[in-house]
Amino acid sequence: MKITVLGIGMMGLPMARRLVVAGYEVHVWNRTPEKAKAVEGAHVHTSAADAARHADLVIALLADGEAVLSTLTDGGVAKAMRPGTLWVDMSSIRPAQAQAHAELLAQQNVRALDAPVSGGTVGAEQGSLAIMVGGEPADFERAAPVLAHLGRATWVGPSGSGQLAKLANQMIVGITIGAVAEALLLCQQGGADMARVRQAISGGFADSRILQLHGQRMIDQDFAPRARMTVQLKDMRNALATAQALGFSAPITTLFESLYASAAANGLADADHSALMLELQRRQTSPADQHRQL
Amino acid sequence: MKITVLGIGMMGLPMARRLVVAGYEVHVWNRTPEKAKAVEGAHVHTSAADAARHADLVIALLADGEAVLSTLTDGGVAKAMRPGTLWVDMSSIRPAQAQAHAELLAQQNVRALDAPVSGGTVGAEQGSLAIMVGGEPADFERAAPVLAHLGRATWVGPSGSGQLAKLANQMIVGITIGAVAEALLLCQQGGADMARVRQAISGGFADSRILQLHGQRMIDQDFAPRARMTVQLKDMRNALATAQALGFSAPITTLFESLYASAAANGLADADHSALMLELQRRQTSPADQHRQL
Repeated sequence: MKITVLGIGMMGLPMARRLVVAGYEVHVWNRTPEKAKAVEGAHVHTSAADAARHADLVIALLADGEAVLSTLTDGGVAKAMRPGTLWVDMSSIRPAQAQAHAELLAQQNVRALDAPVSGGTVGAEQGSLAIMVGGEPADFERAAPVLAHLGRATWVGPSGSGQLAKLANQMIVGITIGAVAEALLLCQQGGADMARVRQAISGGFADSRILQLHGQRMIDQDFAPRARMTVQLKDMRNALATAQALGFSAPITTLFESLYASAAANGLADADHSALMLELQRRQTSPADQHRQL
Repeated sequence: MKITVLGIGMMGLPMARRLVVAGYEVHVWNRTPEKAKAVEGAHVHTSAADAARHADLVIALLADGEAVLSTLTDGGVAKAMRPGTLWVDMSSIRPAQAQAHAELLAQQNVRALDAPVSGGTVGAEQGSLAIMVGGEPADFERAAPVLAHLGRATWVGPSGSGQLAKLANQMIVGITIGAVAEALLLCQQGGADMARVRQAISGGFADSRILQLHGQRMIDQDFAPRARMTVQLKDMRNALATAQALGFSAPITTLFESLYASAAANGLADADHSALMLELQRRQTSPADQHRQL
């Protein structure tokens, strides 16, 4: 089985490496070709269309929906893929874009899955990514043995559903960060020890990966970016745009889009998303409040 | 060591039983005396003051701050306790109330801790409660061997801090429920399978006790009350009142107070707090939206 990986970045590099180690014939392409050479044992192509031409399964790991569409059309990948090829887009793009790409590819008799991931570069290296897959169940079955080398893949519904699940993931992450930040700040404001509060409530109903990881970052005031504020803001905006397209009212996401936008506009654009705590803190001493205290 | 437990309800009953089994001389009182008799091996009193009179440590497990104050004053407990007695209020009350009670008791040379719990009746029966303790560290050290029979106790700061930590716990729970509900509903609206989405994102950054437990309730549409909507609303209002008293701006809690209030006002008062999902769902077909579709 020949597998092509388009996009050899932070995620694509370790994933392509795992597929080589698993014994597949792997073809790779990257916009800047030097990075593609880092996948030892893979065939490096300077054209995306050439990389995809003889593949049985093509994985895309690109920046956004626009980059995916441009690679498919301007890059010639859609026409280069043989009928029967399986297109597995593991990039995080909007659900509507994933559906449009699937329709475009259906015209070439290319099957399409949207299969975005969660788990970061560590998950990509360890093959422990959460992979959320939308498309036809039969296509999912076909991709499953390959995806098994990359993480835990779950079929979640028809085309676009994988991207919906990824948005849901990002919404929950972003909102839970706000919950932990506002709760810990209130405790601090009242004189309690934030670190001890976090410890006290761990293991109970309030426990979460966010309380453990991002809660610790907040206590350590360690806002070096693992996931950037701007990326969290983009996720919130994609969720809102999707909600609007579906006629879905999302009052919680609406509030959080404004909180993350405000954080990004107030000097935190390149900080970790857990720095939403600093945005909530900043609001405690807004000019209006200071004026009231005078 | 003589321990008195005031309030033998859903939580007080299993907790008092555990203290009897641990070998302490346990005295109990309840407003309706029949319930107190269920603590086998304990001395039952018909007056709270009598129950507290000879104790070394008095635990209160009452409905709210008003009930605690009334038991201390009208019930004569404050004056009945000997100097040096340790008052451990495990009820969930407002931080400011806990501080006021501690000041009141200091006049009688009675030491006070606020030590609310999380973990429900199951945690009370198994001795696995999370116990959040505010007060003097020396008093915490004194109570710790007793609390160890009831759960995992963590000192979180000065008087009132235990109640602050409990509010933080409830805020995080209530907000995370909203995050999971809105995210799963968006997926459903877009055609994805909610149950599979929950499964797909489990184990990743979006994972939490709420996703596991309340997320499952949402998927099963099982809203039988484990924690009632009205209790979650009360928690949100206590958090907001505390924030206002501290001059703390809490935009997220403010939104959620209105969401839980709306849920309670729209027929969900006695449902489980995870039924916030139904409130978010109800808003999808508001008259304004229907009108726009016509």
